[in-house]
Amino acid sequence: MPDFLDAVRWDERGLVPAIAQDAGTGRVLMMAWMNREALAATAAEGIAVYWSRSRGRLWRKGETSGHTQIVRELRLDCDGDTVLLTVEQQGGIACHTGRERCFFQRLTDGQWVSDELVLRAPNTIYPAGGGHE
Amino acid sequence: MPDFLDAVRWDERGLVPAIAQDAGTGRVLMMAWMNREALAATAAEGIAVYWSRSRGRLWRKGETSGHTQIVRELRLDCDGDTVLLTVEQQGGIACHTGRERCFFQRLTDGQWVSDELVLRAPNTIYPAGGGHE
Repeated sequence: MPDFLDAVRWDERGLVPAIAQDAGTGRVLMMAWMNREALAATAAEGIAVYWSRSRGRLWRKGETSGHTQIVRELRLDCDGDTVLLTVEQQGGIACHTGRERCFFQRLTDGQWVSDELVLRAPNTIYPAGGGHE
Repeated sequence: MPDFLDAVRWDERGLVPAIAQDAGTGRVLMMAWMNREALAATAAEGIAVYWSRSRGRLWRKGETSGHTQIVRELRLDCDGDTVLLTVEQQGGIACHTGRERCFFQRLTDGQWVSDELVLRAPNTIYPAGGGHE
């Protein structure tokens, strides 16, 4: 395994949070998790590969939807426990709800209010059902 | 406690990752953690209040350094387990190393390389030592 993986402070589950930011718009698209294997694959393949905690396996973002994230930059924070990806979001949709990004709920008058549009119906993105790929 | 706190999917430690993004530049500044009390305080006070895992107490970002984060937007992601803050970073420095942001290491030829400048010496930010406030 390459050295750069040892510089990461993996948590007690062997994971690190990974933030994906759109290279063009600067919008923060989503946050997911990576283990050593996912980060190594992301660096090697140049596309975002996360660790799916719910399915217990590597998750190549877009493997079902086609909404792949091409990685332009891979960054680590000061204390080595968070990764930041700058990505080109294929299809312009990062969220399994069919929105551009996952952060579509804004705190407004003490409530989370969805204020961003669904660009594509989820059942056309994931015909076999599921979601979150 | 207000309702919006119940919509958050707190992890087994009662925490949620909180990403701070600069409202002006769009740069992702840092990632820290919040518990219920921290998120409630952030919403009530309009400044970023995190939970310091190392010190086991609330941490009003900038309480030592003056590098307070004024919150413009508070967002929650689709599955309720990550918060995104859009902030005005006072002093233009979010990182305890004296850099604009914590993500100053970029993966370059298989190594993490620091490619962002120290804007202010940490010992002038934290005269009493410490760091990370």
